Amino acid sequence: MAVLARRCAFPAPGTEVTAAVSGGADSLALLVLAVGAGCQVTAVHVDHALRPGSAEEADVVAAAAGRYGARFRAERVEVGPGPNLEARARAARWSVLPADACTGHTLDDRAETVLVNLLRGAGSTGLGALRPGPRHPILALRRAETHALCAAEGLTPVADPSNDDPRFVRNRVRHEVLPLLAAVAGRDLVPVLARQAGLLADDADLIDTLAAAVDPTDAAALSAAPVALARAALRIWLRPAGGGHPPSTAAVERVLAVAAGTHVATELAGGWRVHRSAQRLHLEPPSPGGRQP
Amino acid sequence: MAVLARRCAFPAPGTEVTAAVSGGADSLALLVLAVGAGCQVTAVHVDHALRPGSAEEADVVAAAAGRYGARFRAERVEVGPGPNLEARARAARWSVLPADACTGHTLDDRAETVLVNLLRGAGSTGLGALRPGPRHPILALRRAETHALCAAEGLTPVADPSNDDPRFVRNRVRHEVLPLLAAVAGRDLVPVLARQAGLLADDADLIDTLAAAVDPTDAAALSAAPVALARAALRIWLRPAGGGHPPSTAAVERVLAVAAGTHVATELAGGWRVHRSAQRLHLEPPSPGGRQP
Repeated sequence: MAVLARRCAFPAPGTEVTAAVSGGADSLALLVLAVGAGCQVTAVHVDHALRPGSAEEADVVAAAAGRYGARFRAERVEVGPGPNLEARARAARWSVLPADACTGHTLDDRAETVLVNLLRGAGSTGLGALRPGPRHPILALRRAETHALCAAEGLTPVADPSNDDPRFVRNRVRHEVLPLLAAVAGRDLVPVLARQAGLLADDADLIDTLAAAVDPTDAAALSAAPVALARAALRIWLRPAGGGHPPSTAAVERVLAVAAGTHVATELAGGWRVHRSAQRLHLEPPSPGGRQP
Repeated sequence: MAVLARRCAFPAPGTEVTAAVSGGADSLALLVLAVGAGCQVTAVHVDHALRPGSAEEADVVAAAAGRYGARFRAERVEVGPGPNLEARARAARWSVLPADACTGHTLDDRAETVLVNLLRGAGSTGLGALRPGPRHPILALRRAETHALCAAEGLTPVADPSNDDPRFVRNRVRHEVLPLLAAVAGRDLVPVLARQAGLLADDADLIDTLAAAVDPTDAAALSAAPVALARAALRIWLRPAGGGHPPSTAAVERVLAVAAGTHVATELAGGWRVHRSAQRLHLEPPSPGGRQP
């Protein structure tokens, strides 16, 4: 465990840490390692109530928390019907977790995220998502290492059947795409993709910083800026229209076309709209009588 | 053909254009469309002499050139033994083609290049490779469109058996990886990946431009610059050590560590070496008695 601990990024001993613990191997390892790092840990289990037996998983987490001297809290959220179940479950989970809660994401998750976002058409910002930092203290560990740690500690992780559901893109990336890519490349691709995520995140950080100098409401400034900066300025400006999520790359291109004068207005998702008048771009929320999100 | 022609990027009618034409559907379409655009076309066939029958393919190209009123030239190159056959064949081919020769790369090639470079561990520069421009006038076309054009023109393309050889990463990307990704994403991924290549190329262009302000031989300047700029400055500086090719991402990180003072020197591929003295980085070619490329 000491070897794993050196590759983790926990705060100083004694710091209060809230850990999101589903009861899977990754998050149980997070709990064990956070306690081992001397943090004052509160393990929070969020029951999404999406399948039978999910409430019992809280007992596994409560037992592990008790054994390692961590506090425990159980939360239950409702995930309504609709498309993109993964995203809605994530949003529901974060509605009851503190914003600085840490999660058990591993290097394998980071590599999978590159591919999931590649399939979604993301640019460098999205491809570089899932970054190292206080919210992801075990991001440098491999998934196999969290399983081995649980086995060594005598912990039996919860097996979440939704991790094998091929309707989720992430699961097919994990079980089909990554193994094929590794076979084609002739090597384990997780460290390769995770390193690329870091390079792309550094590129995106630099561009986002520089984009602060570009006024996204000034059509002339947008058109005169290097296109990579204009896109970044628009991504930041349009976030409110996505409920805090960045706009699609296609939406950004449409707004660039409005700035360039090719169109006078364009619709965004959820009924938001960008229109140009007198060389200024305006971002309008959905009108009460208009299209709804 | 008129519909396809509008999506091509040929120079003004009457311009002399050298087209690399292997006799495959993509390059035959390039020849037909270049002539259709009014260019003065010279079709060059390069025989790599890597398999029986490759010389006869020149006849297919010669016949097509004659039919469309283009000039024709046959070249023959030797590709010596060694690793990375694709790269050596490409280098041999370009040794006999003018630097401004255009090729029949399509949108499918662009998407495949994103994945090939992802497997190689490239950053945004590599992922955004194969860019639109005068050397790639039919880059916006789909491979299916070049085949359809050949069929409509009554041209029978050469079927290059090496395009099906699973020892080449690109072929496995084409025949296995892309179909799986399309199945997982539930849509044709070629336009998605090609668009991402464009976004990443724009990011890389901006960063390379800004990196000109960072002196890669100044250890303090490298360490003080945003890391994305420091990497770009090193990529440009280290090109001679790769025979004009950019260094690996791993080599760039090692040189960054030399700049930061973690190490005093690091070896690059081919016997090149970077060492630090008095806060300056020095790039040294292989010594005559030392390790050879």
